Order: sequence, then structure tokens, then C-alpha cells
Amino acid sequence: MNKLYEGKAKILYTTDDPQIFLAHFKDDATAFNAQKRGQIQGKGEINCTISSALFRWLESKGILTHYIDQSTSNEMRVKSVKILPLEVVVRNIAAGSLCRQTGLPEGKKLPFPLVEFYLKNDELQDPLLTRDRILILEIVTPDQLEELKNLALKVNELLQEFFAGCDITLVDFKLEFGLDSYNRILLADEISPDTCRLWDNRENDPQAKVMDKDRFRRDLGQIEEAYQKVQQRVLSQIQDLQF
Amino acid sequence: MNKLYEGKAKILYTTDDPQIFLAHFKDDATAFNAQKRGQIQGKGEINCTISSALFRWLESKGILTHYIDQSTSNEMRVKSVKILPLEVVVRNIAAGSLCRQTGLPEGKKLPFPLVEFYLKNDELQDPLLTRDRILILEIVTPDQLEELKNLALKVNELLQEFFAGCDITLVDFKLEFGLDSYNRILLADEISPDTCRLWDNRENDPQAKVMDKDRFRRDLGQIEEAYQKVQQRVLSQIQDLQF
Ligand SMILES: Nc1ncnc2c1ncn2[C@@H]1O[C@H](COP(=O)(O)OP(=O)(O)O)[C@@H](O)[C@H]1O
Ligand SMILES: Nc1ncnc2c1ncn2[C@@H]1O[C@H](COP(=O)(O)OP(=O)(O)O)[C@@H](O)[C@H]1O
Ligand SMILES: [Mg+2]
Ligand SMILES: [Mg+2]
Repeated sequence: MNKLYEGKAKILYTTDDPQIFLAHFKDDATAFNAQKRGQIQGKGEINCTISSALFRWLESKGILTHYIDQSTSNEMRVKSVKILPLEVVVRNIAAGSLCRQTGLPEGKKLPFPLVEFYLKNDELQDPLLTRDRILILEIVTPDQLEELKNLALKVNELLQEFFAGCDITLVDFKLEFGLDSYNRILLADEISPDTCRLWDNRENDPQAKVMDKDRFRRDLGQIEEAYQKVQQRVLSQIQDLQF
Repeated sequence: MNKLYEGKAKILYTTDDPQIFLAHFKDDATAFNAQKRGQIQGKGEINCTISSALFRWLESKGILTHYIDQSTSNEMRVKSVKILPLEVVVRNIAAGSLCRQTGLPEGKKLPFPLVEFYLKNDELQDPLLTRDRILILEIVTPDQLEELKNLALKVNELLQEFFAGCDITLVDFKLEFGLDSYNRILLADEISPDTCRLWDNRENDPQAKVMDKDRFRRDLGQIEEAYQKVQQRVLSQIQDLQF
């Protein structure tokens, strides 16, 4: 087992099988393009467990993902893919950089789910891309772009439904996709409180509602507790769905 | 005559006729969202003269503009419009923020003219907008957006042709549009070395080629001379076209 790449939240290892990587989920947390750094106790296990549950559920609904199995509490076996250098963000409610950049008020429900593409490039600080910029940079073909958008919207519908069953509002989230050896597009990376904005429907106070990495970004405290709560609700929803 | 609005490059006055404004072109120069400030001697007259010539020429080619006439050396009478809060940028060659944001190399010819929309909002620092962000912000309707894109592409074709006759390469430029009292879209504001990137085909050195506000932004010197040269070539091209 060789370390292939250490990222901000995970370490990727190769295995005997070139088609399979092992993703080790770390407790390390970063925000604002890694300018803010810290640790969230137990995050590795929680994010690995939540991601595994969601990938399994999405697979059962017909979404192709890189997920194979959760081999240990903080390790996931995944299909090796060539990650497309795009962060695909879906937004249902305005928050974060969308508000900072456009002046839209935080919490405003959007008239339609907004699918956005950002260049996955830490040095350039993950800039927002337009359709034409994506095509000029030749990151994907027009057909692949269309497929990515449709996949992102489908995943959004499924996750919104899933989280609604957990009394959680899915505000927005970031997906990564990769190409397998047949050039098929697989959903990859992770789906966790690090990569989603999740608001607790059981709370009224705008700060108490926050169950995701915004607790870390905005120093709201009780970060571990929020991540644990998401895990509990996701796992019990998985059980309720007898899945 | 009342001062209606003083911007970074022009002062707008009302006139007796509510349908007509007077635009006074200033020598003031700003860059990087007004963080850098200075004066370019004679710029007001030059930009007013170049803009007037180009608006007249575009009108003759069927583009509706706000231009009425050049009433003094640095003043233009224009139709009063409601300016759409969009900076419409057309790019033929990669330069400036496109390169900084995407890593595309400066000077790379683009595979097609890139029409981009930025929010005209100094406080938010004129952020890049995607199609969906424009629609969510309800800045224009989908039909108006389509028309703006087509108009921008048409103006690009015409200006590329015009500047080619001046031995000048039109790298990119920024347009503003407004709605008149009949809700027609008119090309407004100015078209000048302040709002275009213009490269001199008669020079080989990359710095010597620069005939526009980049000389000010990048402290290349001989700013006035470059602006004057653009004016001379534009006016003699207008004469050659017996126009
Ligand atoms: N199935 C996969 N195959 C190959 N690479 C993957 C796969 N899933 C995720 N990755 C990549 O693993 C890397 C490590 O993850 P992470 O620590 O989140 O990195 P980053 O700091 O780039 O966000 C990322 O570059 C991610 O795109
Ligand atoms: N025909 C017009 N009717 C109304 N406003 C106009 C017209 N043409 C240009 N303007 C506006 O005049 C203002 C002054 O121009 P300028 O000094 O360039 O301003 P800015 O600092 O916003 O760039 C701008 O807001 C511009 O949009
Ligand atoms: Mg990551
Ligand atoms: Mg201006």
C-alpha cells in the first residue's frame, strides 16, 4: 500500500489492484482555501461513515459512484478514477460565496437549484467558471458538461429527499466526479458535513441550525457534536428505509 | 444643466430635454476597482472623440446606440437610458482577469469570441456572473440576455474589422447597455482605450504593442502618446471609409 496523494481531508493509497484506491479520512479541517486550519475530533470516522451510507444509498437509486465498501471506521475502498478538475456545487438556498459575490441575502430560497462549476485548483483559489470558460479550458466536452449538470441535479433531488427524512435542510453541497477506465463518469470523493451545508429543521436559531463545516469556518463551537448528530440521523434514516 | 452622477471617468448632466443627457469625459484614470488613481492628460477629449467616431460608425452599421453628437471636444450628447447593471465583456485573446483567474496564458487566441457578463457593482468588485446567476438576480430576462450576447458579438465583429483597418488588434473590450423609454436596448457609455485592450500591429515588442489603459495599470509610460495614436488612426480610418 503506497501513499498516492495527501489532500486536505483525506489520504489516498494505492492497493494491489490498480482499479482500487483506499481513501483514509483525516480529522484535519481547513477552510478559506486552507488559510484556516484545525482538527475536528472524530471527523475522519464520521465523514467516512456518512459518505459510505450516502454513496450506498445513491447507488441503490441508480447513481454510479466510486464507492466499494467501508473497510475500517475511517477508510473507504473506492474505484480509482481520473478526477475531473471541477468542483460541482449545487445550491438550493443562497449561502457562502454566492452571497458574498452577488449580494444575495443568506438564506434566500433560490427559484431553481443552481448548479455551479468551480475550477479545482488551490493555487488559483477555486475560481467560479462559466460554461464558455469550461469549454475554452477544455476541461470536459459539451456532452460531458451536460451529463455532469444532469447528474448533479439528480443527486440533489435524491439527497434533498434523504435529508428531509432526517429533519435536515440541504442548503448546498459540492461534488467531485471522475472518469473510470471506460470513460464513464462516476461520482467520487466524499459527501459529508465538510462538503454540504446542512441546517437542522429541529432548531430555530440560525446559528443553532448549522450542522456542517460552517461551525468551524465561523467559530460557532460544538463542531464535533454537530457532526455526530448528522451521523446519527443519517444512520437511523438508513435503518428506517430498511436499507 | 444639473450634475446627475459623477463616475470614475465621466460626469453625467441632465439637460432641458429629459430624453437627453450630456456626458463630460474627464482626464481622471482609475484601475483595479479604483484602488489605483491618476490622471491622463488629454484623455477626456481623446476618449470622447474616439467614442463618438466609433458610435457613429456602429450606428451606420445598424447598431442602436445612445450617441447623439459630440457637442464639445470632451462632451457627448447621449440619449438618456436606464443602464443595465452589467459589464458585457467580449474577449478575442486571453488577457487580464481571465488569465489571472483561469491560468490561461496571456496572448492566447481564444477558439471563439468569449462574451462574459460582470455585475456592475463597485462594492462587490464587479464579480463575474454565470447565466444562471444573472437570471436569479433578475437583472435581465432570458430574452434580453440572448439579445445582449448577440449584440455584443455583432459589435465585436464590426469593431474587429474597424480596428484591423487601423493596424490594431482588438484583444477585448467592455460594453454597457441601457434601456430607452420604449424598453429598447441601446449600446451606451463609451468605447475607448479605457474600455478596450488594443495592440499595435506595427510593433513587435509585447509592451510597445499596448495602446490602452494597460499602460496606466502596468506603469508602462507614454500613456498620452498611446491614446493619441489610437485617436489618429481611428480618425484617419473614418476618413478612409469616406464616412
Ligand atoms: N475515486 C477516486 N480516485 C482518485 N482520486 C480520488 C477519488 N476520490 C477522491 N479523490 C481525490 O482524492 C484527493 C484527496 O482528497 P482531499 O483530501 O479531499 O483533497 P483536497 O485537498 O484536494 O480537497 C482529492 O484530490 C480527490 O479529488
Ligand atoms: N446614455 C446613458 N444614460 C444614462 N447613464 C449612462 C449613459 N451612458 C453612460 N451612463 C452611465 O454614466 C455613468 C458615468 O460613467 P463612468 O464615469 O464611466 O462611471 P463608472 O465610474 O460607473 O464607470 C456610468 O454609471 C454609466 O453607466
Ligand atoms: Mg477535498
Ligand atoms: Mg465607466
